[in-house]
Amino acid sequence: MQPHKARLQFASNVREQRLTKGLSQEDLAELCGLHRTYVGSVERGERNICIDNMERIALALEVRLEDLIKGEKE
Amino acid sequence: MQPHKARLQFASNVREQRLTKGLSQEDLAELCGLHRTYVGSVERGERNICIDNMERIALALEVRLEDLIKGEKE
Repeated sequence: MQPHKARLQFASNVREQRLTKGLSQEDLAELCGLHRTYVGSVERGERNICIDNMERIALALEVRLEDLIKGEKE
Repeated sequence: MQPHKARLQFASNVREQRLTKGLSQEDLAELCGLHRTYVGSVERGERNICIDNMERIALALEVRLEDLIKGEKE
């Protein structure tokens, strides 16, 4: 069984941070040099995203990567 | 240009946590169901590791994934 808690938490945090900053998925995709549909699938937790792309998204959102990993109750 | 700061930080933190727990790369590989040579390459920052495997390693080391992402000075 593959773990999947982390990717769902990441998905949720990316979406929350993107909306907080008033960005569309298209905006975020452009900022991080990824495709819009890729960003959408990341936000749905469908992608086993790799660390370099996680870092790109964190840089685009101007947050620390660890803040995109954190759970609400931790 | 690919970002790579996050993967080097992750590599360094995994190695530190593994050594703190007195585990060999073989031990860690067995605990997380990954190959020994894969774990070695992750610790050298050679792998663009994906989030599911990052979570496996965090679970095997009994730490939170965010603690494997954090930098020393953040």
